[in-house]
Amino acid sequence: MLEKIDTNGPADLDKDTIKKENKILIAKIEALQRILFAEAKHSLLIVLQGVDAAGKDGTVKSILGSINPLGCNVFSFKKPTEEEFGYDFLWRVHKIVPRKGMIHIFNRSHYEDILVPSVEGYYSKELVDRRYDHINNFEALLADHGTTVLKFYLHISKEEQLDRLTERIDNPEKYWKHNDGDWESREKWDAYMKVYETIFEKCNQPEWHIIPADKNWVKVNAIAKIVLQILEALNPKWPKLETEKFD
Amino acid sequence: MLEKIDTNGPADLDKDTIKKENKILIAKIEALQRILFAEAKHSLLIVLQGVDAAGKDGTVKSILGSINPLGCNVFSFKKPTEEEFGYDFLWRVHKIVPRKGMIHIFNRSHYEDILVPSVEGYYSKELVDRRYDHINNFEALLADHGTTVLKFYLHISKEEQLDRLTERIDNPEKYWKHNDGDWESREKWDAYMKVYETIFEKCNQPEWHIIPADKNWVKVNAIAKIVLQILEALNPKWPKLETEKFD
Repeated sequence: MLEKIDTNGPADLDKDTIKKENKILIAKIEALQRILFAEAKHSLLIVLQGVDAAGKDGTVKSILGSINPLGCNVFSFKKPTEEEFGYDFLWRVHKIVPRKGMIHIFNRSHYEDILVPSVEGYYSKELVDRRYDHINNFEALLADHGTTVLKFYLHISKEEQLDRLTERIDNPEKYWKHNDGDWESREKWDAYMKVYETIFEKCNQPEWHIIPADKNWVKVNAIAKIVLQILEALNPKWPKLETEKFD
Repeated sequence: MLEKIDTNGPADLDKDTIKKENKILIAKIEALQRILFAEAKHSLLIVLQGVDAAGKDGTVKSILGSINPLGCNVFSFKKPTEEEFGYDFLWRVHKIVPRKGMIHIFNRSHYEDILVPSVEGYYSKELVDRRYDHINNFEALLADHGTTVLKFYLHISKEEQLDRLTERIDNPEKYWKHNDGDWESREKWDAYMKVYETIFEKCNQPEWHIIPADKNWVKVNAIAKIVLQILEALNPKWPKLETEKFD
């Protein structure tokens, strides 16, 4: 399924036009975020998934780089620590969900706790399979509290990944991003895609957004449009003045 | 239903015999807890619920008072703080579940987040009703990680509660336990009992243990037996020596 989905976006997009539009979209997101924060009624959890070098870090910077850090936090998920392994897999995730008024971004997320064990076979299939339900229940709990979970899969082609991983061993300013493990994961590309497809099918409340991500400006455009749409639907309002002095 | 369940325990119990038995039970619990902690494979979450003055504090001291505090934590649940209200109701609970090897006691628990809103009507019935599912899903998540949740309802009669609350305004060493709110809750006794009955019915995986609690030594006996039974079933083993030096 995934391999049939385009990673480039519509062919007729004009780069300059889109980049101008992106600036406007991001300014609108910023304006609404200020009200979301002040109102402190709803919250937004943005989940970014994708293979290595899919552009997750860049997305964080593009979409939320100009937002007041007071109202926005980013969390990157690595391999669980020894302490985290002592708890259920959602323990470390639940601790860092957004409080009312906040926007949080998960750079990778609880979905890694399905992806990696499924491909690497760390646990029994039965145990991993139950994680789909646990995640659905967890996201329903958040929804009941007024948290919108927005899930993005940054969809790049296998060739594009090769270019990007190669740049990390060619460009001294990108050496720090190089990781031998990324090349090992690349060899398991098909296995990861299969698990992603199962995730998109089973964990579809709310649905995943599959974002063509070979071109950054196309990717930013697609994500910014969806984030803005959600913020507009939440329709946050500036709180009224709470005082009796100036009535 | 609850009103028909005895709060005294079997009439033929001999106090001295039971108290001696309690000492043995608790010594056995302590011995097994040391292995549970060393093995760090399973954990135990003991939930204590009951009306005010049902004997929750005393239970903690009796059952786990002699256990090494390193392997055992107690958490008392009060009204959520302003910060906690900013998150879903299970956020503050999930943070303090037991790590592998640990025993945690919840003195009151996430069930208060059904009890109080149901009786006081803070939220819509629909929203509170969904909390039964959220709690069931949460406890299933813990179970999948090897955490046994043991739920006790300390069952005292309305007359016994009157005696105990009265003592709190007569005995200077108990003044600190007095709280006007307890008398207000007492007036809503029947409403609380009704919600408890729904909880016992809907959140029965694992099942609730309804403990006759008018007499402390009967209560301790019933709870210690169940805790010991669970620890014996977990059957913790001392870990093998991890070294190559002394093979």
